[in-house]
Amino acid sequence: MDFAPDTRTTELVERLTAFMEERVYPAESRYEEELAAAPDAWCPPPVVEELKAEARSRGLWNLFLPGEEGAGLTNLQYAPLAEITGRSIHLAPVATNCAAPDTGNMEVLAQFGTAEQKEQWLEPLLDGRIRSAFAMTEPAVASSDATNIETSIVRDGDEYVINGRKWFTSGAMNPNAAIMIVMGKTDPSADRHRQQSMILVPRDTPGVDVVRGMHVFGYTDRDHGGHAEVVFTDVRVPASNLIAGEGDGFAIAQARLGPGRIHHCMRAIGMAERGLELMVRRAAGRVAFGGPLTDQGVVRDWIAESRVRIEQLRLLVLKTAWLMDTVGNRGAHTEIQAIKIATPSAVEWILDKVIQTHGGGGVSQEFPVAEWFAHVRTLRLADGPDEVHKSSLARREIARVLAAG
Amino acid sequence: MDFAPDTRTTELVERLTAFMEERVYPAESRYEEELAAAPDAWCPPPVVEELKAEARSRGLWNLFLPGEEGAGLTNLQYAPLAEITGRSIHLAPVATNCAAPDTGNMEVLAQFGTAEQKEQWLEPLLDGRIRSAFAMTEPAVASSDATNIETSIVRDGDEYVINGRKWFTSGAMNPNAAIMIVMGKTDPSADRHRQQSMILVPRDTPGVDVVRGMHVFGYTDRDHGGHAEVVFTDVRVPASNLIAGEGDGFAIAQARLGPGRIHHCMRAIGMAERGLELMVRRAAGRVAFGGPLTDQGVVRDWIAESRVRIEQLRLLVLKTAWLMDTVGNRGAHTEIQAIKIATPSAVEWILDKVIQTHGGGGVSQEFPVAEWFAHVRTLRLADGPDEVHKSSLARREIARVLAAG
Amino acid sequence: MDFAPDTRTTELVERLTAFMEERVYPAESRYEEELAAAPDAWCPPPVVEELKAEARSRGLWNLFLPGEEGAGLTNLQYAPLAEITGRSIHLAPVATNCAAPDTGNMEVLAQFGTAEQKEQWLEPLLDGRIRSAFAMTEPAVASSDATNIETSIVRDGDEYVINGRKWFTSGAMNPNAAIMIVMGKTDPSADRHRQQSMILVPRDTPGVDVVRGMHVFGYTDRDHGGHAEVVFTDVRVPASNLIAGEGDGFAIAQARLGPGRIHHCMRAIGMAERGLELMVRRAAGRVAFGGPLTDQGVVRDWIAESRVRIEQLRLLVLKTAWLMDTVGNRGAHTEIQAIKIATPSAVEWILDKVIQTHGGGGVSQEFPVAEWFAHVRTLRLADGPDEVHKSSLARREIARVLAAG
Amino acid sequence: MDFAPDTRTTELVERLTAFMEERVYPAESRYEEELAAAPDAWCPPPVVEELKAEARSRGLWNLFLPGEEGAGLTNLQYAPLAEITGRSIHLAPVATNCAAPDTGNMEVLAQFGTAEQKEQWLEPLLDGRIRSAFAMTEPAVASSDATNIETSIVRDGDEYVINGRKWFTSGAMNPNAAIMIVMGKTDPSADRHRQQSMILVPRDTPGVDVVRGMHVFGYTDRDHGGHAEVVFTDVRVPASNLIAGEGDGFAIAQARLGPGRIHHCMRAIGMAERGLELMVRRAAGRVAFGGPLTDQGVVRDWIAESRVRIEQLRLLVLKTAWLMDTVGNRGAHTEIQAIKIATPSAVEWILDKVIQTHGGGGVSQEFPVAEWFAHVRTLRLADGPDEVHKSSLARREIARVLAAG
Repeated sequence: MDFAPDTRTTELVERLTAFMEERVYPAESRYEEELAAAPDAWCPPPVVEELKAEARSRGLWNLFLPGEEGAGLTNLQYAPLAEITGRSIHLAPVATNCAAPDTGNMEVLAQFGTAEQKEQWLEPLLDGRIRSAFAMTEPAVASSDATNIETSIVRDGDEYVINGRKWFTSGAMNPNAAIMIVMGKTDPSADRHRQQSMILVPRDTPGVDVVRGMHVFGYTDRDHGGHAEVVFTDVRVPASNLIAGEGDGFAIAQARLGPGRIHHCMRAIGMAERGLELMVRRAAGRVAFGGPLTDQGVVRDWIAESRVRIEQLRLLVLKTAWLMDTVGNRGAHTEIQAIKIATPSAVEWILDKVIQTHGGGGVSQEFPVAEWFAHVRTLRLADGPDEVHKSSLARREIARVLAAG
Repeated sequence: MDFAPDTRTTELVERLTAFMEERVYPAESRYEEELAAAPDAWCPPPVVEELKAEARSRGLWNLFLPGEEGAGLTNLQYAPLAEITGRSIHLAPVATNCAAPDTGNMEVLAQFGTAEQKEQWLEPLLDGRIRSAFAMTEPAVASSDATNIETSIVRDGDEYVINGRKWFTSGAMNPNAAIMIVMGKTDPSADRHRQQSMILVPRDTPGVDVVRGMHVFGYTDRDHGGHAEVVFTDVRVPASNLIAGEGDGFAIAQARLGPGRIHHCMRAIGMAERGLELMVRRAAGRVAFGGPLTDQGVVRDWIAESRVRIEQLRLLVLKTAWLMDTVGNRGAHTEIQAIKIATPSAVEWILDKVIQTHGGGGVSQEFPVAEWFAHVRTLRLADGPDEVHKSSLARREIARVLAAG
Repeated sequence: MDFAPDTRTTELVERLTAFMEERVYPAESRYEEELAAAPDAWCPPPVVEELKAEARSRGLWNLFLPGEEGAGLTNLQYAPLAEITGRSIHLAPVATNCAAPDTGNMEVLAQFGTAEQKEQWLEPLLDGRIRSAFAMTEPAVASSDATNIETSIVRDGDEYVINGRKWFTSGAMNPNAAIMIVMGKTDPSADRHRQQSMILVPRDTPGVDVVRGMHVFGYTDRDHGGHAEVVFTDVRVPASNLIAGEGDGFAIAQARLGPGRIHHCMRAIGMAERGLELMVRRAAGRVAFGGPLTDQGVVRDWIAESRVRIEQLRLLVLKTAWLMDTVGNRGAHTEIQAIKIATPSAVEWILDKVIQTHGGGGVSQEFPVAEWFAHVRTLRLADGPDEVHKSSLARREIARVLAAG
Repeated sequence: MDFAPDTRTTELVERLTAFMEERVYPAESRYEEELAAAPDAWCPPPVVEELKAEARSRGLWNLFLPGEEGAGLTNLQYAPLAEITGRSIHLAPVATNCAAPDTGNMEVLAQFGTAEQKEQWLEPLLDGRIRSAFAMTEPAVASSDATNIETSIVRDGDEYVINGRKWFTSGAMNPNAAIMIVMGKTDPSADRHRQQSMILVPRDTPGVDVVRGMHVFGYTDRDHGGHAEVVFTDVRVPASNLIAGEGDGFAIAQARLGPGRIHHCMRAIGMAERGLELMVRRAAGRVAFGGPLTDQGVVRDWIAESRVRIEQLRLLVLKTAWLMDTVGNRGAHTEIQAIKIATPSAVEWILDKVIQTHGGGGVSQEFPVAEWFAHVRTLRLADGPDEVHKSSLARREIARVLAAG
């Protein structure tokens, strides 16, 4: 349970920090300008491609992916890097080819894909040439209960025929999101967790209708392809597009969610750290009623509480990473749920105080905090609301205590 | 301290409820469509003018304004009506000509305006022909401390010359917002609360530059004219545009803020009531893990807590209204601050749970809740952050207790 | 919905306030001394009898009891009086013969008792000559679910035979608690809410064993007879001791609980008011780090929050009282639950801050706050934990919304 | 930053766990009986001496003390052991000679004592033959600001003369607490942090008056000598009783507090773990409204939240221990404050839920939880209220951020 960064991590932290300071932070205003200049674009603005090229040349590429196909880092090694990228959430993850949902999709392809699937889709994703989307949540049902999923994937000769309606398919508004992984049911009569399958659906397949981008609060997140509502009407793909076998969908989803959750939490901690810095700087520079806001007891209370919460979150995330590395995602199940429960709500609390310290500016586009708040708020819902995870964690805790006699 | 609605209020509640059910709720989808069809418009969509005409014909007009110029209601009479309009926050207040910031501006003109000022600006506002804006907050300083305000209003012969930068000037992006009330300093060397003055500045005066609309969690609120950043550069207006006298600005602001705060709180309660209904309906209609969400203990806890909080808020708002009616805004100072402190944060808590119950849809444009959340979140900052009001209320409480010996 | 005190209430408030200032507060130290001087006594110290005589002579007696047998006040009239007695929780309620559990027991006897029962037990209770106890909660089961109650009341000829174990039978350690009302089951096979009956059991009946006093956070509350564990072994009482009929126990309990809850909440608000005063005085008189604690932003935040919460609680309690007076306890069911949910937790929050402001002294016998805290903490459990009431309130709220269509 | 227990720690954890299961838990009921049998004793009941002998024979003795004089463990090694002793807070710490305030006093003597002081006082303390007390807090002033301390220590020839009033001098009611370390001022005109000195005062010195035991909520904690109010009137001790030099008092206090805080936090985590087990067991065994309480969503939420919070607290405490071991108490200043801020309030939250799950029993002597709650509640005040620590931590956080530019 050694959380200290090893030599490779330390070297990468330094290299990534230099990249952030030399290239990413300075690019943030250009990013805003380019976005504003292309109000109808649903893709990253031009500066992102430059940053990608630069990150790759600096050896900061596919850091998230273990094994030979990626940077080969453990979760514990990746954790402090992901945290750093969270400090500039719109630029750093995508610049390093470590942005969701591509990360999860690449993991799925690397772990479960056939050679053909890898060649066709994993390679260009690893290369940063295309983007991807993951179609799981459905508007009509409580999708946190996987048995509710209604999208059908029906075998018809050498093809599968897909029908259904998804939303919050992040990234899918981006025309460059060439491939979607779609979760549906191949056998509604099978066991609860063997009904689902995952299948690869190219975005340009006939019958795929990307209807609209769902907003998050008022944000479209269009720079990373938005969160699309997508309708699948008699969409036909070759049977070879199925990932692993029929009925493996739930298991793949579980395998995908572990890393996805910890990545989100790592980045959220980076966001909280930068938020805390913004809070301190703002409070130090703002005078009211006779002194800077840093003299106000309530503001100091927020600053202290934020530091105390961040320290606890980071340690829990590091322990979870270490567990995933040593006993596997299944063995780290409780801890993965614990960080999923703890991190978004604590970071939301912190960012709320950052907003409050910034006055009206805090809720506006003048500062990035309101958008960060919207982002972490959605994490309390993403892949199942906190309440589902709490209930599940409690069930195991109850079993553990009762088993101890 | 009788909070029961009197005959007139009961009659108006019924009439307003009928208007909501027959016209306003049914218009909500058309409003969305018209807004979407004119993506660059910074004004209410066409349906609003129809609703205004209808409301006026039904005698539901200028309900907020006491005295002969308005509906002549007391605060206690207006409270349940304002709450009802808060249930459809984008349509009902504007339809009844009871939308901020016009309400506050009309109150100021009615109370402090000269005959000429009233004729020129109050009448068309009362008539719903023009809209208005209120320019107080400045980006450069902590504006909750009024001594910080930097905009200058300098007498030069028969004119005043205004220089300064404001933001969150709500409504000012609307070309139809013909008039602005601007807060600035006429005498920075005067006593702390005699430095400020208020002055009328027509939006088309040379030197007035409406720079941009500030967003609120990604929302532009463009249907009611947004929240503008406005730069005033050597803006000249006739000396007769001053409201009341030089140095009266702080006192006018205080007079304006009392009703403004209670109106916001009343509407926020209506929003919470409708939110609670949405929560219950969603929970009843959504099945997960074997039953509707209304069977989940945590959801029931949210529903009960929401009801308990709403009841308390409403009573405190009613008492405040009654106090304002009987002892005046000054005598109701503590209660006005109390509702300003209590309401937005409690309603925010409730709406957070409404969002959570709606899953991903809750943060999106599919339901109105995320936008409501953004709205009440800003109320924790509007005309001074909660923390300023708490400190002020505490000062009086301390004095009260110590005076009792 | 007029919450303003009427003439009679105003007069009683003045009279009661004078009694508090002239006699009760000055007696508090003597009360402590007398208690300490008789460490094994489970009854009020001598000063209490003096205060009772004085209160009675001042016409401040049985204020809680409506109708001719008591002071004949409505709930709305009694509310501000009960609040005032809550400021000196150990002395004022008992001095005015308004202390639990006698109040509830007298209400039950007044409402459901036969003439004989009234003569034998109600009269001496109204006269303050004896005390009483109420035996409901059982250690072996979750008693908030009334169907769980296991104590049996079995008819045998002209007698009932009682067997069971109760605890938190408040008052029963006091030898002067001459009579107990015991809840048990006469027919376990009846409908869920017709199984229970209530019966009068004199404390000196053979088979009644008052085992021990349950502590509350280390406090014995021995000055009002503690909270006894009582075992009933083949206890025989005349059949005429049954209150109302067999199967009426649940209904009587419900009738008893409404007033009981509101009295507790009223007194808790008085306790919070006095706690807030203590907080302000302590903070004003304590210097640290360069100024009095009243200059500390966090302390001011506590003071403001306390005031805001108290205002809301009091209004909700008043509305509940008014509802009980106008539509009856059944019609005020939601509000009674609402105050039961809202009041103890909010007052607990306030008292926690009062403690914190007093430093180490705050948790000790040097100040009364820690004991008050323990008292309100138990209210979150008394006659059912908050969670049961929330779930029940939510059920009605859900039904209401769904019925509205 | 390796938090995994090393071989020695693992061995000690096993040995201590065996001791707990074989001897300590089974002794808890006997402890209660013996305490009850000697209601006026202010010292551990007889069973404690047996446990001490047993612990010592098992090599579980003075585990807290680094260096040759103690078990020689690092903070990181001691942390899991202290946590385990926290599971039986009344017995396990004292049985292993690891109970406050002796631990802090022994540390002070080991670090700053002269050879004579060590021989006279440290040896019998290490041997468990005597107990000790630490007299710091004063009733008259806010003692968290050390400059407020009013007790005087005046040199007079070969003696020091001590005058002052202390309270919450834990342990001092125990006649066996042979020695007290007293904090006072030798030079009120010196620099802020050089005014104070510490001096050894035998409890039987003329002029030492142990006035009374302060209660904590209703608990006296008499089994470990209570929390005494002590008056020092012209108390004379040899000049050689001064610890280190005049003016060193503040520095010694700081050195003493670091380990003291972390020990308290470690034990509090053990208490939370056992509390969580009690909550689960109670909920699993209690049926209401159709099923065990473990089926209730709200209870499951509490269980999950408790687990998530405990995990975070433990990691933060382990990191703090590791930092103290590697960079010293001064270098771990922020983390020590962080655990002092985070742990008591989180454990209080958990224990509140444990109480709630136990119904009325939860606040009583039937279960140990209410007393645990009272204990952790005082930790929010012990050696300075949380608010002082938060403000101090914030000051350093502000400096850190601003220094980064």
